[in-house]
Amino acid sequence: MTTTSIEIICIGNELLIGKTLNTNARWLAKRITALGLKTHRITIIGDSIEEISNALREAIQRNPHFIITTGGLGPTFDDKTLEGIAMALERKLAIRDQALKMIEEKYRQYVEEGRMERAELTPPHIKMARLPEGAKPIFNPVGTAPAVIIKHDDITVIALPGVPSEMKGIFDESVAPLLKEAAGEVTFFETSLDVTGMMEPAVAPLIDRVMHDNPYVYIKSHPKGEETVSHLELHLSTTAEETDLAKKRVGKALIQLSELIQEKGGKVKPVKAKS
Amino acid sequence: MTTTSIEIICIGNELLIGKTLNTNARWLAKRITALGLKTHRITIIGDSIEEISNALREAIQRNPHFIITTGGLGPTFDDKTLEGIAMALERKLAIRDQALKMIEEKYRQYVEEGRMERAELTPPHIKMARLPEGAKPIFNPVGTAPAVIIKHDDITVIALPGVPSEMKGIFDESVAPLLKEAAGEVTFFETSLDVTGMMEPAVAPLIDRVMHDNPYVYIKSHPKGEETVSHLELHLSTTAEETDLAKKRVGKALIQLSELIQEKGGKVKPVKAKS
Repeated sequence: MTTTSIEIICIGNELLIGKTLNTNARWLAKRITALGLKTHRITIIGDSIEEISNALREAIQRNPHFIITTGGLGPTFDDKTLEGIAMALERKLAIRDQALKMIEEKYRQYVEEGRMERAELTPPHIKMARLPEGAKPIFNPVGTAPAVIIKHDDITVIALPGVPSEMKGIFDESVAPLLKEAAGEVTFFETSLDVTGMMEPAVAPLIDRVMHDNPYVYIKSHPKGEETVSHLELHLSTTAEETDLAKKRVGKALIQLSELIQEKGGKVKPVKAKS
Repeated sequence: MTTTSIEIICIGNELLIGKTLNTNARWLAKRITALGLKTHRITIIGDSIEEISNALREAIQRNPHFIITTGGLGPTFDDKTLEGIAMALERKLAIRDQALKMIEEKYRQYVEEGRMERAELTPPHIKMARLPEGAKPIFNPVGTAPAVIIKHDDITVIALPGVPSEMKGIFDESVAPLLKEAAGEVTFFETSLDVTGMMEPAVAPLIDRVMHDNPYVYIKSHPKGEETVSHLELHLSTTAEETDLAKKRVGKALIQLSELIQEKGGKVKPVKAKS
């Protein structure tokens, strides 16, 4: 089974000065994982054409199936994602009629609903319709700026807006179906075990043993609160072609791990099971 | 004025599957900015020696003053940061007495406080003291695993734990003073303006004009909630050698921007002022 791989590139100075918590990356990573794909890297860069272009070129060299960017699609001067993509892929930017129509339609609607006085398109509006050659706009069900999809050899580059409600709306409506198709029949399954009464260094060799015996299951220990209170969360996860198989694999590892920990005097308690 | 630049590398599969929200990156970026330095890029990768080594090598090529990593310093098999750093810098790993003493001392303390039965060091404990050649351990006031500092040519690489309380404790105690010294007398100042009654495309040319007239001030617009409700936050920021100068620069731009927006029929309200 080969996993379909993704890189995420988040664009915005607000992320680099700590003004904004990057909830977009976490939301996307969670969805991507649930769809059975694997996020290999997340890169966060500022509002600079060169930085965007460099980050995209570097990601392309690592040859993932998809590259998803967030941010920088709006009307202001610092929305530079499309210029950055055009530079990285060496394509020209040109006003795309299909994108312009999406924007015009949105503004007509805003005027009809009395939210705006007139729907004349100004240069900042038109900017959102200037796409790299070969790119297609994706309808934005929440805001104005269309998302963009563009093929580069075998890699699909998808540019989503940075406003979380718009990013999520477009992802669920137009991106998730593409990813699901690319991933095929694959399920991610995860569960957690709450461990008390044992310190992380004592649990470490038990995890090693269970991972050795269960090569498809990944186990990671997370100290909860302060390290000295002997409280760990052990997170078990796997990806498989069928849900039943994924659950069976994780279940087997979970039982073995629980038994080993209890033999050493630790206490275990299942935390949650999600599919 | 040259700004002192930083890259952050966050290590952990839990960040790539969306299990954990990356609050560490945001916290660090905010502190770094407040200390007058600039975060150029944040990279998030999984628990893989090759990935860590690659990300570090790429960061080194961009030649920042500091590279700060978070995560992967603990006792379990998937704590691979020190191995990744050793691979990237082509240095051997060796048990460092100074680090081993820090870990022993912590465990002795835990036993004295009755939190552990005995303080025998097992291989998982000793693993935390295996540092790349030339690296120095940094005392961890909160947990066990020491942080690590290592010089590579003109770049200082600092590896911090991923547990937020440990990361913050070490940063404030040992890293912030280093960064402050490197940054020199530099202040970051930011403020925000709440704008209603104008859409982002209409405000965009006004921002362009104010940024043109105030070359040291960076202004970014953030749509609040849905784009159609005509509610924006405009964030103004600058970095200067003196707090008064920074405040004066931002204040001048703020007044000009407020006047231009009001002339066009928008309403403005200052949000907050932080230094």
